[in-house]
Amino acid sequence: MRGIVTFYLTYLLCLMLGITCVALVAYWNYSYRGGFAWDGSIKQFNWHPVFMVIGMVVLYGNAAIVYRIPLTWGHNKLPWKLLHAGLLLLSFVLSVIGLCAVFEYHNANHTANLYSLHSWVGICTTALFAAQWVMGFTAFLLPCTPMTARALVKPAHVWMGGIILVLGIVSCISGINEKLFFALKGITNGTLPYSALPPEAITANALGVIIVAFGLVVLKILSNQTWQRPEPGYEEGVYQPLGYDGS
Amino acid sequence: MRGIVTFYLTYLLCLMLGITCVALVAYWNYSYRGGFAWDGSIKQFNWHPVFMVIGMVVLYGNAAIVYRIPLTWGHNKLPWKLLHAGLLLLSFVLSVIGLCAVFEYHNANHTANLYSLHSWVGICTTALFAAQWVMGFTAFLLPCTPMTARALVKPAHVWMGGIILVLGIVSCISGINEKLFFALKGITNGTLPYSALPPEAITANALGVIIVAFGLVVLKILSNQTWQRPEPGYEEGVYQPLGYDGS
Repeated sequence: MRGIVTFYLTYLLCLMLGITCVALVAYWNYSYRGGFAWDGSIKQFNWHPVFMVIGMVVLYGNAAIVYRIPLTWGHNKLPWKLLHAGLLLLSFVLSVIGLCAVFEYHNANHTANLYSLHSWVGICTTALFAAQWVMGFTAFLLPCTPMTARALVKPAHVWMGGIILVLGIVSCISGINEKLFFALKGITNGTLPYSALPPEAITANALGVIIVAFGLVVLKILSNQTWQRPEPGYEEGVYQPLGYDGS
Repeated sequence: MRGIVTFYLTYLLCLMLGITCVALVAYWNYSYRGGFAWDGSIKQFNWHPVFMVIGMVVLYGNAAIVYRIPLTWGHNKLPWKLLHAGLLLLSFVLSVIGLCAVFEYHNANHTANLYSLHSWVGICTTALFAAQWVMGFTAFLLPCTPMTARALVKPAHVWMGGIILVLGIVSCISGINEKLFFALKGITNGTLPYSALPPEAITANALGVIIVAFGLVVLKILSNQTWQRPEPGYEEGVYQPLGYDGS
């Protein structure tokens, strides 16, 4: 009982941090960066951090911990599997829209794509995310996949899920840092310099810190053995098939 | 036996990636950034990435996995505890020297300290590292600490150890990305721009990718249950005291 209360308090913290991330990234780009458009201007670029933070971090993190919610344990696993896969597909689609925003902005302004370390790590993260989703779908949602294969793939799937979140956070922090140096140049573009820590810098730095805090809470939830959905089939090597309770 | 061979192959990969990180960060700063000095010039700044990558990532990662080496399992744990704590202390000292390099360079050139997101995450990582070392020393090396407290602290110590490595990697990637935008400005400072991917950009981006790969291998070694040092005392709740075999 005490474990469940601690879980829900941690989960509440996770939800609050996630909502704060979404609010801060939207506020930063709306209030300080001129808002949003899809016209090849800098306003199109502004969708990039918003979609990446929502898709690659907040929605991804929440989708990853669906099975940890004790409320879902007493039911057939299939609807939660579909929710897990569905949320992650939505998270992936939002990430791809976020990538389209920056590629189209670069192309419209004859700027090179994929040269910075931020972009290298970011594109690798997206590729890993795509591979992870396809492998997860193949292993856990296709009825023809043998149960032994599912049990074999599961530890790698869980580990890779955590690693993709870590890489998503690395991408976000390096991207926010890069953007602030681009945007807050001081005299040359009429802003206060980043080094003077104007309100925009504090807002976006705080966003970065809260993204890290959100990621750590999700990783804590994922790593806590006592918060894992009880899967009796796994221990005895008789993992239940899709559609059966506990599969 | 197969598990031990797989461990040593993974460990070899870890060592090779670590050595490559050290070689690349030194080569980048020596060959492309003008080398090293301790005179308040940009050559003093160049020590910052070198010491942070060696201290906060490579040495830290290797110190974290000392107990996973099967060669150490047949012996009294105390010498390996001292090696673990000693390597981490050295790793912390190198990180502090790396911080001194950048603070003194900033102060000598009247540049603000601790304003970027990179610096916020980096300084929090160093503070967590210091707290983790002190807590680790208090819990596992002071003979007066009760065994029950050790067993209680251990999971948090192991988890926090992995998290500090993750934060170290976030700091390194955002720092390398930031430095390349500062250093490769194109016409304004006589270099090829970062966006043209000159050899320096490829070298430092590759360093970033290899740092990430090194971190993932260390996290994989830490997370693999079958590679953990057998600690019979833990399972039965009779954790052995300091100096006893298995403590």
